[in-house]
Amino acid sequence: MGIQFNVFKGSKNGEIIEGKGYRDAKPTEVIVKISHCGVCGSDEHFRHAEQGLGHEGIGLITEVGSSVHAMSEFRVGDRVGMAWFHKFCGYCKQCITGHQNQCVNSTYFGNADQDQGCFGTAVAWDVSTLYKIPDEIASEDAGPLMCAGATVWSPLYDHGLRPGDRIGVIGIGGLGHLAIQFASKMGMEVVVFSSTESKKQEALAFGASEFHVTKGVETLGSIAKLDALLITTNVNPDLALFLPALAAGAKVFPLTISMEALPFSPLALIGGFLSVIGSGLAPTASTQAMLAFAAKNGVKPQIEKFPMTQVGVTEAMQKLRDGKMRYRGVLVVPN
Amino acid sequence: MGIQFNVFKGSKNGEIIEGKGYRDAKPTEVIVKISHCGVCGSDEHFRHAEQGLGHEGIGLITEVGSSVHAMSEFRVGDRVGMAWFHKFCGYCKQCITGHQNQCVNSTYFGNADQDQGCFGTAVAWDVSTLYKIPDEIASEDAGPLMCAGATVWSPLYDHGLRPGDRIGVIGIGGLGHLAIQFASKMGMEVVVFSSTESKKQEALAFGASEFHVTKGVETLGSIAKLDALLITTNVNPDLALFLPALAAGAKVFPLTISMEALPFSPLALIGGFLSVIGSGLAPTASTQAMLAFAAKNGVKPQIEKFPMTQVGVTEAMQKLRDGKMRYRGVLVVPN
Repeated sequence: MGIQFNVFKGSKNGEIIEGKGYRDAKPTEVIVKISHCGVCGSDEHFRHAEQGLGHEGIGLITEVGSSVHAMSEFRVGDRVGMAWFHKFCGYCKQCITGHQNQCVNSTYFGNADQDQGCFGTAVAWDVSTLYKIPDEIASEDAGPLMCAGATVWSPLYDHGLRPGDRIGVIGIGGLGHLAIQFASKMGMEVVVFSSTESKKQEALAFGASEFHVTKGVETLGSIAKLDALLITTNVNPDLALFLPALAAGAKVFPLTISMEALPFSPLALIGGFLSVIGSGLAPTASTQAMLAFAAKNGVKPQIEKFPMTQVGVTEAMQKLRDGKMRYRGVLVVPN
Repeated sequence: MGIQFNVFKGSKNGEIIEGKGYRDAKPTEVIVKISHCGVCGSDEHFRHAEQGLGHEGIGLITEVGSSVHAMSEFRVGDRVGMAWFHKFCGYCKQCITGHQNQCVNSTYFGNADQDQGCFGTAVAWDVSTLYKIPDEIASEDAGPLMCAGATVWSPLYDHGLRPGDRIGVIGIGGLGHLAIQFASKMGMEVVVFSSTESKKQEALAFGASEFHVTKGVETLGSIAKLDALLITTNVNPDLALFLPALAAGAKVFPLTISMEALPFSPLALIGGFLSVIGSGLAPTASTQAMLAFAAKNGVKPQIEKFPMTQVGVTEAMQKLRDGKMRYRGVLVVPN
């Protein structure tokens, strides 16, 4: 058994290369024939690496490893999703307390399995990091939920925020447009900040209660205080603009990976009882809850489709890089 | 009734000035005749302001306002402590959810009641921010618990940390030496970081399990991971040294007020699932629990006494400024 697959990789000069590979299912792995994969800004970070790209994959299980029936509910034919993490150990403190995404022994996109990727036709995948996709969610919509969805869901779901809370969302993109939907369907007031007016109507349609333009603005004025702030922009925002709008005890989540320091002073943190919280994807039960919530409440990404080919991957990544994606690209494996 | 008092204030040129004042007890206030007051680094920030200094006061209630009996347990003769906050509103969201220290309508040291201060012989004080001192604690020891004690207690008590957790404490001073005692008596492993060896024996005597010298050190080596890090130094430490020693999900508390930004990148926060948490003093119930815990477990500051006089205040503040206080100065009102 096992499977031969095509995979789309980065390369030293940044071109997308089509490669081939072969994988057997190890005892705790399944083989997933991929149908769709979302395109994330984090793929861009690995475009110059010789590794398989893609970490928002959806597909069907075609084969299971020898231990899979004994240790999981996954079976051949299940429609499943794969994201950033490749394997959780299951026995470290973080795993056994339900914080699997903080597993200290995890393998993940960029550090393991570089021969394969969800930009491709199949992968071997450990069941510890596999998710069943509810029937109500189309595969093309499920892809972006695996990384973008989980990334914005966890701050809203796992950190004590509540219905009725005021949630600031900076940026409307792959993450932001899902954050607005999740938060508004959770009964939160969603306060969107965008550099210009251009996405205002869509933000309101996604569920925003307020929309504020930030470009050239020196103060947010008398805006009611925010209980949380989700930063979903590629570059760090000017925090001086937002600090006066944060409620005492507000939680700030920088969600996109930036190397540039966020300039929080102890004075600002202590004076405002602010927490700046590092959060990446979501624990296992939280991710399952996210998928169930999206299914029941009709949360889905607004997508643009591209073929899962060298040209399709190249175009989709270019469009994202140009800031023109509305709001998430999804690669579709041709029949 | 009412009381005439002496008070020690800052002044434009930074000299300590002795002034006089008079206060009546408003309906929700008591008059406290002060016996002791701790000297905090935050007093230094107001040395050039024309206001009463001191916010670690201890004394006896000599008079109560007209509503005090109806709304509190405080009575004439009670020994009480006063700290940073002067009044909590009692009705804002933060107050009614038990986070009084985050009260959005609070008045506090530096923003109100500049005519008086706990560097003095008496104050009028609202009962919302008053604490009874357990009999087991001497007044001279109780003073430093009111601000330094509460400041290090709250991170350990109010943020989900647990017995057995490894708590890093950077700096051994007024705050740090109390943090070591509280954490070790809570059953935590206390890992102390100090620039030199000079305070090692005292740190171990306070309850530290490990002591690491940081000056000139480029790596902490194979130190077991820390679940929390309390920064108690006046200047921000070089975080690059400490980041590799933090466990996944670790909580970092900058506890001394600094204007200088702490250089945390989103990459470091997300990669390590770190939270940087602004915490100031402690909620009301938490402060009461701290005093009870200190009484039962013999936690007390190591103090140096100075007379509550113009000379005594000046000398104590100078010694603290020079980094020579071991570890908290306490002003004592002469009989």
